[in-house]
Amino acid sequence: MPSSPSFSNAPLCLGSMQELRSLCSNLPQADKAAQNAIAQREQQLTKPEGSLGRLEELTSWLGGWQQRATPKLENVQVLVFAGNHGVTQQGISPWPSDVTAQMVSNFRNGGAAINQIARTVDASLHVIPVHDLQPTADFTHAPAMTEQDFLQAVTLGYSAVSSDCDLLCLGEMGIGNTTAAAALAAALFKESGTIWAGRGTGADDAGLKRKATVIDAALSLHQQVCSDPLEAARSVGGYELAATLGATLAARHKNVPVLLDGFVCTAAAAPLARLHPDGLAHTCLSHCATTTGQTHRLASYLGLEPLLGLGLRLGEGSGAALAVGILRAALACHTGMATFAEAAVSQKA
Amino acid sequence: MPSSPSFSNAPLCLGSMQELRSLCSNLPQADKAAQNAIAQREQQLTKPEGSLGRLEELTSWLGGWQQRATPKLENVQVLVFAGNHGVTQQGISPWPSDVTAQMVSNFRNGGAAINQIARTVDASLHVIPVHDLQPTADFTHAPAMTEQDFLQAVTLGYSAVSSDCDLLCLGEMGIGNTTAAAALAAALFKESGTIWAGRGTGADDAGLKRKATVIDAALSLHQQVCSDPLEAARSVGGYELAATLGATLAARHKNVPVLLDGFVCTAAAAPLARLHPDGLAHTCLSHCATTTGQTHRLASYLGLEPLLGLGLRLGEGSGAALAVGILRAALACHTGMATFAEAAVSQKA
Repeated sequence: MPSSPSFSNAPLCLGSMQELRSLCSNLPQADKAAQNAIAQREQQLTKPEGSLGRLEELTSWLGGWQQRATPKLENVQVLVFAGNHGVTQQGISPWPSDVTAQMVSNFRNGGAAINQIARTVDASLHVIPVHDLQPTADFTHAPAMTEQDFLQAVTLGYSAVSSDCDLLCLGEMGIGNTTAAAALAAALFKESGTIWAGRGTGADDAGLKRKATVIDAALSLHQQVCSDPLEAARSVGGYELAATLGATLAARHKNVPVLLDGFVCTAAAAPLARLHPDGLAHTCLSHCATTTGQTHRLASYLGLEPLLGLGLRLGEGSGAALAVGILRAALACHTGMATFAEAAVSQKA
Repeated sequence: MPSSPSFSNAPLCLGSMQELRSLCSNLPQADKAAQNAIAQREQQLTKPEGSLGRLEELTSWLGGWQQRATPKLENVQVLVFAGNHGVTQQGISPWPSDVTAQMVSNFRNGGAAINQIARTVDASLHVIPVHDLQPTADFTHAPAMTEQDFLQAVTLGYSAVSSDCDLLCLGEMGIGNTTAAAALAAALFKESGTIWAGRGTGADDAGLKRKATVIDAALSLHQQVCSDPLEAARSVGGYELAATLGATLAARHKNVPVLLDGFVCTAAAAPLARLHPDGLAHTCLSHCATTTGQTHRLASYLGLEPLLGLGLRLGEGSGAALAVGILRAALACHTGMATFAEAAVSQKA
């Protein structure tokens, strides 16, 4: 039973930061009754208690946020938001900004990693360029987005989530966006550029230093507004990050559990956790490349336990889609296994 | 091009330990030319270099051991060997031995976790009771198996591997077999029962202590022969462990990469690594439940890096089958992605 059916199908146009703020603070909760029913069945299945480890947790998580005791994964969607970043003028990426649009074409032609991974896990893929791939303002000089453009991007992300989706995988593409994500994380957690800057898709030592300097400059310019998570997202974020925030928020209101993909995606959703103590409870971090980097730090701060640790650092939703296979297995076990009674298997003494 | 085609289709009946020893020491190697071709294509695909992390390694591993520059995963098999253990007389498991046969029926009726997981990754499942599920001797009193019975179990495992299999997932079922596996690991690495005994499928503190004592008693009884890895496998192992060793060896000779499942399975295959410095190079450890337990220790000793860390401790090949999805995604990316040239995507500066 959906907790907030009123939001489910209404078209949304966020007219003000205040409206967005209100959507972020009135969040539906997981269905505890569904989770209890799932736990009860789990105990009867032919395996030692807890022996399927996180697979058991995942089924409960799915059911709780789908608001159903019999979770399903018939309609799994991957949304990849793409955007460009004015801060690339500061030389923070070794890749030209043109690559964002080129990769959007590659996604549409089926040639990127996410196309292949989504296919292997039977998920549908939707690629959504935000703000026509026009870049944000260079946030070392001005807020990345105007209030109107920010709200438009959040709304676009919000509207992209369909309430008949069973599981949403979020991903992104945008040359320069690891710098925006690091700046946003630094702003949200009041730490320095050096702490949050990472190598992204291939920065060398000099590039890494430049990223840290650029982030510190942005934090210093926007410090007055950055204590507010949404203002931080508008000032040092990006269009595809704002859309990701909108989609994560929509998923919560539409009873759709979310698999987050890596650093940029998680940083984009992080303002929700800063606005509400369990704002990201309906999300699961699909992967974390290392146990030392910025994604690991962000996951720790947000209390997210990554599912996979395969050294992926691509983005595009690749890690989120990869984790769908784990969820399918978890659900198949929960649904298809025999109970001790059905299989006439003796129990532990 | 197979390195040792002579073994590929010949029926095998190991008549002596010497024959087995010889099969263990003459091992074919990975196809370096195939791996080079794979690496060359990988570099041209539309993603930052190395950004698919271990997925890239996995494709190379698959191709190298399949001896083909275009690896495939059309025929993925899960073999689950089942056996019983005389050492259960020592009260080392809270589960009755009957459960082994009951679970074999459950596998055959499609009701176990491995049935569901194998189906989600499109792998065929074969369940093979070894030695008619008659128990080994209690190895605190005598060698677990006679030479003949041991060789028969190894041969059964060897023969179960088909050379047209593209990837083999190994798993096991056998009440009491975590004690046998721990005893085998302790024998192979000359360490104590306390170091290797684990909680298996649910031992409490007293049970854990009992396991350690039982293992130490076995090591003391068999110490004279245990310096030889195969004699250790015969003296303190089990039928399903011997079959697993045979299957792992067969896979190497038949150009079939192997996904190992957890502690029992990996301990069963470990004698190969003690007989040959790269004896397990054609295997990949699918998962490890924790970063502190006995599987983690065994993986470190054997130089195996687990793919998944989802807290699974079920056996049955469940973790190995789960990891097939990761390999399918890896291969799909390698095979299906566009190159920079094909997609007209600009490269890094």
